[in-house]
Amino acid sequence: MSKTLAYAAQSATQPLAPFSIDRREPGPHDVQIDILYCGVCHSDLHTARNEWKNTIYPCVPGHEIVGKVVAVGNHVTRFKVGDTVGVGCMVDSCRTCPSCREGLEQYCEKGFTGTYNGPRQEDGGNTYGGYSERIVVDEQFVLRVNHTENLAAVAPLLCAGITTYSPLRHWGAGPGKKVGIVGLGGLGHMGVKLAHAMGAHVVLFTTSPGKEADAKRLGADEVVISKDADQMARHAGSIDLIVNTVAAPHNLDPYLNTLKRDGTMCLVGAPAEPHPSPTVFNLIFKRRALAGSLIGGIAETQEMLDFCAQHGIVSDIELIPIDYINTAYERMLKSDVKYRFVIDMATLKQQAKAA
Amino acid sequence: MSKTLAYAAQSATQPLAPFSIDRREPGPHDVQIDILYCGVCHSDLHTARNEWKNTIYPCVPGHEIVGKVVAVGNHVTRFKVGDTVGVGCMVDSCRTCPSCREGLEQYCEKGFTGTYNGPRQEDGGNTYGGYSERIVVDEQFVLRVNHTENLAAVAPLLCAGITTYSPLRHWGAGPGKKVGIVGLGGLGHMGVKLAHAMGAHVVLFTTSPGKEADAKRLGADEVVISKDADQMARHAGSIDLIVNTVAAPHNLDPYLNTLKRDGTMCLVGAPAEPHPSPTVFNLIFKRRALAGSLIGGIAETQEMLDFCAQHGIVSDIELIPIDYINTAYERMLKSDVKYRFVIDMATLKQQAKAA
Repeated sequence: MSKTLAYAAQSATQPLAPFSIDRREPGPHDVQIDILYCGVCHSDLHTARNEWKNTIYPCVPGHEIVGKVVAVGNHVTRFKVGDTVGVGCMVDSCRTCPSCREGLEQYCEKGFTGTYNGPRQEDGGNTYGGYSERIVVDEQFVLRVNHTENLAAVAPLLCAGITTYSPLRHWGAGPGKKVGIVGLGGLGHMGVKLAHAMGAHVVLFTTSPGKEADAKRLGADEVVISKDADQMARHAGSIDLIVNTVAAPHNLDPYLNTLKRDGTMCLVGAPAEPHPSPTVFNLIFKRRALAGSLIGGIAETQEMLDFCAQHGIVSDIELIPIDYINTAYERMLKSDVKYRFVIDMATLKQQAKAA
Repeated sequence: MSKTLAYAAQSATQPLAPFSIDRREPGPHDVQIDILYCGVCHSDLHTARNEWKNTIYPCVPGHEIVGKVVAVGNHVTRFKVGDTVGVGCMVDSCRTCPSCREGLEQYCEKGFTGTYNGPRQEDGGNTYGGYSERIVVDEQFVLRVNHTENLAAVAPLLCAGITTYSPLRHWGAGPGKKVGIVGLGGLGHMGVKLAHAMGAHVVLFTTSPGKEADAKRLGADEVVISKDADQMARHAGSIDLIVNTVAAPHNLDPYLNTLKRDGTMCLVGAPAEPHPSPTVFNLIFKRRALAGSLIGGIAETQEMLDFCAQHGIVSDIELIPIDYINTAYERMLKSDVKYRFVIDMATLKQQAKAA
């Protein structure tokens, strides 16, 4: 085992603080990664504070990881020391169920192993995520990063990027399609960039009039203030696909109304309390669907990273030192970030050296 | 104009009673139909009692019509006097919008003309439905009936049949697919028969243990008592498509849980009050969808009638005289019918002669 410095929550009510964890030595199929950057996802906060009622403590969040390979096991064929790699929300799955065999490990029928708060197979403990110096991951769950610069801004692609990329691909976003993105936060700003790069006509729905210029800079063709019924009415029955990134409970009907016949609104935010119930007439009268989507499979995550490298897409980020994480959580709750916090893990290594 | 005896509601609180309506003389494209049978749909009751808050009075319900052609206009090419025909929920649409051009008149972007309670183009009044001696309909909205016997039991195919047939076809019910039908009423019993005839493995969900034998006779391979959590759990994550015919508000989550990854639950019942809100996690974790579907287009309704004639499928009905209609409504509210009331319109003609 290897002692590794991390930041952990010890309970739902305590702030994150330095904590020493054990990482396994790399096995034959493992890649040991020196973490350079880790994005800060809203799920990190939900889990650290046990808002989904399933957190095992101590909890080390972080599943938007970019780093350098520092060691590989004997049987590792896809990576070598020095490679720039990423790790997203999963570090393992059963690999044998129909979903895993189709490359949709996120829907593993036995449940994938989360990068944090997942069951740790070697000792029955829970997995520790990217708010740490190093991580050891089976090569099947390691992604290749082809971006050559701005690696901090690549980190959020591993969750915010794939979470929006996957439904955009699954429901056919592309030229000739009108795509709505609800919310301009960490996920939403990636949705706008990705849908634009795929060639769709992009409509950004936001409650904040102040976000219009930024949304257009990011790639939105139109910006709709969702509280304005007249603006909403102008888009009635016109949108092929909506990716709704808002995790707070809200009325879904005004958005369903903007969908075309056979259109789908895909929810990617998971509110702790349910949304108000959508009106069944809104589904029936145009054969619309309300769906959900969870991150993406490993192969699709690689496809997304390659697509982003090719199109020069990264996240808009605010780089922070690790000891700022609790403040960052408070600001995230106020949506006071454009658009993703990313932890510079060099600041954790300085703490480790000083200790 | 031609005086025609009908049964009408004069207000939300009055029972249906005899009422004389005017029908237009057949125009060049019209078919005049002597109504033999008319099915009794729950929508008839919702509309007669203004439960959807849009009823224009007097209201003559009825959109499951089977009859004989008694006159045709000069330009009618598809029907001749003596033909057995059907009329369903629509008697017109704009015919020019994308949905109409694709044969999906039920999703007409200007709104189709309902067989009853729709706008009547010739004089701005409202349309009168099948609880009447005769009806005049543009040939484009008249269906050919190839069944040669049991015509009373064909009538419910025009709404209950197509409402379940269309989503079963749209979401690919057939051999190798496991299809759930929720509720064994007028729509549900047609869903079971049709899904079985399409070759799917059919699971009927019901709250009534007493319906098991009947469900199996109708074509269900399995019957699940939906209040029994253990029975529900045995089907978790296994069903490709659910057609949910229950119009009363109910918890959708136990049904969503039985869907496979990428499965869809299609709602065809329209509750006056919303269902409890489904849990977003249930959609996200298997990329499931909650959708709606409305009757079917004219071409698909013809396809359904032909499919039913070929497979010997009709509705299970209880034939009633017209003056039983108010009692039938009360029994329908208690689900006390196996499985559709159909009015024998000869009983109305006897009243007309006696008057």
